[in-house]
Amino acid sequence: MDKMQYAIGIDLGGTKVAAGVVDGQGRILGRSHRPTEVDRGREVVLENTVRAVREALARSPRWVRGRIQAVGVGAPGTVEAGTGRVLLAPNLRWQDVALGQLLQERLQMRVYVDNDANCAALGELLAGAGRGSRHLLVITLGTGVGAGLVLDGQLYRGAGGFAGEVGHIPVLPDGPLCGCGRRGCLETLCSATAVAAMARQAVSDGRGAAIVAAARRIAQGQVDARAVMAAARWKDPVALAILREAGTYLGIGLAILVNLFNPERIVVGGSLARAGEALLGPAREELARRALPGLAQQVAVVAAELGNQAGVVGAAALALGWGRKEPGPGPEGAARAGAEPAEG
Amino acid sequence: MDKMQYAIGIDLGGTKVAAGVVDGQGRILGRSHRPTEVDRGREVVLENTVRAVREALARSPRWVRGRIQAVGVGAPGTVEAGTGRVLLAPNLRWQDVALGQLLQERLQMRVYVDNDANCAALGELLAGAGRGSRHLLVITLGTGVGAGLVLDGQLYRGAGGFAGEVGHIPVLPDGPLCGCGRRGCLETLCSATAVAAMARQAVSDGRGAAIVAAARRIAQGQVDARAVMAAARWKDPVALAILREAGTYLGIGLAILVNLFNPERIVVGGSLARAGEALLGPAREELARRALPGLAQQVAVVAAELGNQAGVVGAAALALGWGRKEPGPGPEGAARAGAEPAEG
Repeated sequence: MDKMQYAIGIDLGGTKVAAGVVDGQGRILGRSHRPTEVDRGREVVLENTVRAVREALARSPRWVRGRIQAVGVGAPGTVEAGTGRVLLAPNLRWQDVALGQLLQERLQMRVYVDNDANCAALGELLAGAGRGSRHLLVITLGTGVGAGLVLDGQLYRGAGGFAGEVGHIPVLPDGPLCGCGRRGCLETLCSATAVAAMARQAVSDGRGAAIVAAARRIAQGQVDARAVMAAARWKDPVALAILREAGTYLGIGLAILVNLFNPERIVVGGSLARAGEALLGPAREELARRALPGLAQQVAVVAAELGNQAGVVGAAALALGWGRKEPGPGPEGAARAGAEPAEG
Repeated sequence: MDKMQYAIGIDLGGTKVAAGVVDGQGRILGRSHRPTEVDRGREVVLENTVRAVREALARSPRWVRGRIQAVGVGAPGTVEAGTGRVLLAPNLRWQDVALGQLLQERLQMRVYVDNDANCAALGELLAGAGRGSRHLLVITLGTGVGAGLVLDGQLYRGAGGFAGEVGHIPVLPDGPLCGCGRRGCLETLCSATAVAAMARQAVSDGRGAAIVAAARRIAQGQVDARAVMAAARWKDPVALAILREAGTYLGIGLAILVNLFNPERIVVGGSLARAGEALLGPAREELARRALPGLAQQVAVVAAELGNQAGVVGAAALALGWGRKEPGPGPEGAARAGAEPAEG
């Protein structure tokens, strides 16, 4: 076993900023979160971030405080990972912000920045459902659909940092209109947003009684993906059919990914992944039907394990050098050798 | 400039085996080819290969012979690159043949083996339209559609060596039946085979006079992709429309690749790429329409430069360590540093 390492992981979202002190096995030793307060401007967002970090440190064992090696941040948008600049983050209303540098000045520690999908992938790689994988795709089904690609043990970002735009694979030529201006992109068919739209359609068609009942119980009456997942757990056939449809479209997208990347493992996370087998079962069936013979059998499609901790754990993994070619402050070669850390 | 390097490249096809002595800039110093003679069994194929190598050496300058560092082979099928085993090569009627080892015994030189699409990609990377690219996709449009992926300067093979099955991206849900058993795969729409089928359809619809005339002149009367390309060069509108249609489908496939890989360059090669702008123009238009805004502008889509030399040059590049993480016999870091070799 390597000497234990420690890093701070920050999950910077549009509503909430979470920070955690994380060890080299992905265990959170202390955590905190604060509202991001995007409305109040960049300085306040940075202050809230620093405060969350200080609280997380204060809540961690005293002995760990002098041993933090670096800070990682997952930001919601396009990030230039090499420089730590956030190029565009609509949810933060940021354009070209030198986040890495600004936090480094305030925290007096080395800061690494990447986008939230990449951090989620590193989290699952370090301590979740992707442990030990060298060829791993982590798909996040939330408001949209994103992905982090771990290829040959390294995060793959592409020439401009935009690789992995899985949400915009065209799946259904005449499908729903996407935010990107085209029709039938994967995220119009299997995101939480898409499932909510299917549910509202079912309700307006008079088939949604169970979903409405679920919405009253768990979602303050709002007919959204959570209500569909709850109704599906109660075996409501309409909710199950909606998740089956979304899962089938997901399977088409997965087949394209499998044919192109030949991964050993695909981890499905994000809020919609809590649907579990009601979604993943149909996705696997469609994948087997659509991927090249032989390729579908080489890949395991599994649910994410870290839930909403993935962001903090993954940002810490980024700081510890996971997914990077050049050695980070962590033990040399951990990411490259595909080392399997012990259970976190 | 590094000390000059030399390798032998072998392009092992179902009909013909070609060998060349190649220098570190991708120049062929001596070459030869022989019929593969698949019918006569594996031993004869190996003998023909060795003979082509010996002839290529005999035709090279005398001073180069003692300086060959390694041998590379591109094989038509699934290859386990680490061990040099050909797992499945229908055109050779081979299953699990230890090609690397068998040739190493006969040639008494280190032998590297990879599939032909990966070798073509390395050829274009070393000395063709992909020079200097770190994020490069090389698509080959021939009987089928294949691809070699250079990601972060390295060949990406995936977990089982199957990555880059671009030909089986589903593009048209109710499209033509593919050899893989599904419908509307990219290779049913923009391969040489697909273009030939569209041409035969045009002929049977009575719209194919110019294509038939071209076929008589250049293709022994056979209505195939070559005849369509010839008629297109004479500005036949039917032939141009066929290439526009194939190019448009290609553009849909490219949009998916661009969204997922964010490459800086896509090189289009193979027999159908000789159609040039009649095919690539519509492909670029469709790519711009379909890829995420911003991403299409980051990528150049260009025709391959090496033609049917790509196989030999690329196999030699493989031997010289291009696209490999661990240093080959070549200068350390050439592939990793994205070095731009001088013009070949």
